[in-house]
Amino acid sequence: MTVLTDTHISLAHGNGGRYMRELIREIFARHLANDLLDTDADAAALDLADSRILFTTDGFSVQPLEFPGGDIGSLAVHGTNNDLAVAGAIPAYLSLSAFIEEGLPVEQLDRIVVSLAESARQTGVQVVAGDTKVVRRGEGGGLYLTTTGIGYRDPTLDLSMTHIRPGDRILVSGPVGNHGIAVMLAREQFGLRGDLLSDAASVLPLTRAAAAFPDGLRFMRDPTRGGLATVCHEISRASGYQIRLDQSAIPVEDAVESVCEILGYDPLYLACEGRVVAVATPNRTEELLTAWRGMPDGRQAAVVGEVIEGRAQVILRTGLGGERFLEELEDDPLPRIC
Amino acid sequence: MTVLTDTHISLAHGNGGRYMRELIREIFARHLANDLLDTDADAAALDLADSRILFTTDGFSVQPLEFPGGDIGSLAVHGTNNDLAVAGAIPAYLSLSAFIEEGLPVEQLDRIVVSLAESARQTGVQVVAGDTKVVRRGEGGGLYLTTTGIGYRDPTLDLSMTHIRPGDRILVSGPVGNHGIAVMLAREQFGLRGDLLSDAASVLPLTRAAAAFPDGLRFMRDPTRGGLATVCHEISRASGYQIRLDQSAIPVEDAVESVCEILGYDPLYLACEGRVVAVATPNRTEELLTAWRGMPDGRQAAVVGEVIEGRAQVILRTGLGGERFLEELEDDPLPRIC
Repeated sequence: MTVLTDTHISLAHGNGGRYMRELIREIFARHLANDLLDTDADAAALDLADSRILFTTDGFSVQPLEFPGGDIGSLAVHGTNNDLAVAGAIPAYLSLSAFIEEGLPVEQLDRIVVSLAESARQTGVQVVAGDTKVVRRGEGGGLYLTTTGIGYRDPTLDLSMTHIRPGDRILVSGPVGNHGIAVMLAREQFGLRGDLLSDAASVLPLTRAAAAFPDGLRFMRDPTRGGLATVCHEISRASGYQIRLDQSAIPVEDAVESVCEILGYDPLYLACEGRVVAVATPNRTEELLTAWRGMPDGRQAAVVGEVIEGRAQVILRTGLGGERFLEELEDDPLPRIC
Repeated sequence: MTVLTDTHISLAHGNGGRYMRELIREIFARHLANDLLDTDADAAALDLADSRILFTTDGFSVQPLEFPGGDIGSLAVHGTNNDLAVAGAIPAYLSLSAFIEEGLPVEQLDRIVVSLAESARQTGVQVVAGDTKVVRRGEGGGLYLTTTGIGYRDPTLDLSMTHIRPGDRILVSGPVGNHGIAVMLAREQFGLRGDLLSDAASVLPLTRAAAAFPDGLRFMRDPTRGGLATVCHEISRASGYQIRLDQSAIPVEDAVESVCEILGYDPLYLACEGRVVAVATPNRTEELLTAWRGMPDGRQAAVVGEVIEGRAQVILRTGLGGERFLEELEDDPLPRIC
């Protein structure tokens, strides 16, 4: 419930005057309140516990703004926190920038900011700085958000794609493609319905569990735009080695598989928003897999491939025993997915 | 000059695959290159010289994207750096998030990123993290940018609107309204032309000069959206005191004055992007004014008003000797001005 008297966002909510002040106070400041967030200040003063930090930014343009399993608000928190988490950090602070399209229902904006605030609380981060702009009807797409995060580096971890060596194993923490398919079905343009939820969530518990094996953990990444296949291409390109994936080992939920078959999508290229791809040394892979499988979000974790000597490319061993190249993504199968 | 083969941005430039990688490499990474920017990494690792930092974010949606005296790229650097500077910090690092509309000419994007990179270099900040999203034609408005900044706090400064006391003076570092009018004229919808340039620039030299008077400097703010009048409202509301401005003392360039008269705008409500409003104790005001007037961007600095006991409102002494209330801004006179 919002206490703003207007039902829809107008240009005056972006002009720096009274309406903007009310919007910020009644929606953003009210839901995001914390000791460090001062909406009267030009900048937030932080006394970081450590000067070794990780810093990242991410923009969000998902369409529709709300979808089964999440919304642009929870996605904006998890997306940026997850980038810090897979880089080996513990997220601490976020800033939030919003481009709001004239005409957006105030109730919807309120729900999204409530969801964003709840996701931040769950993950233990504080939103300490923000900015809002209002753009004219037809210039926006409803709402775009950018979050920028500061996290503390775990000094025991030294993660880099350049540390990857032949023999290393590729793990994923759970089934792939759910976010992409859930958002697509929410668009209703395909006439398909299902109970499928986005996997959007914090991966911090998973990355902290992986951090217990600092000598065996080479690299982590969350497979968002471009999916698992694109992460494998990035690894192959940066390391110079070949990646071999085993199709039968890659967890894909039946509902995702079915929709992909109907519409001609490949789940390996679809965005996840709550999964981790990890590269681990062979001697630590089983321990990491066991640790993940004991966690609520890691029950379906699996070893899905291996790094080998050979040309830098990504090869998929199919279920039928054949092999095919996984090409780098070219056309965009699903715009505005995250 | 860009080396991308495409002339316009397409959705494939946002999908996480090959086209996106080329866009990031050939435009963003090429122009913004620095030791800390690793476009293959999820987050930038920073070893801050000090853990006492200031952190701020700002979104930019200016229309047109390029205007006399600047563009959305230079604005995105100066706007966020200036928020840090007026808060008493020295800007050090920026992140950059871009929402690009399908169809944006690649050459224009390239020019804007070159300008952004040049502004960052001039100000001594490094762009260390970034993200790009591409939205469909008709969902964007060309280009929206969000920059988020980290700066080092100057420990000798303790700036706050709550420190303001009756007798304090209000100073501005230069003429007001240039940015707002320059952008408006650039839209060409008014049929007016002029040589007027935006004042968009770094205010860091001005804020560092003001920092030489730590015992006399109460507060600084850059008068962006809502202009000088809105900053005075913010000061009045937060301090609980009355602000009296002297119209004849407020520097306004003739060209700005003329356009405002024709179109019915009040320059006191128009955005500046390179000015500082400072509140100083009476005994330090002359020294601060002298310091600013000796600087290239401060030659027209002026004492424009005073903080007095009385109801928390903003009053303008007009050139004719009368007085009127400056109301808080309600309607938006100029959307997408910054």
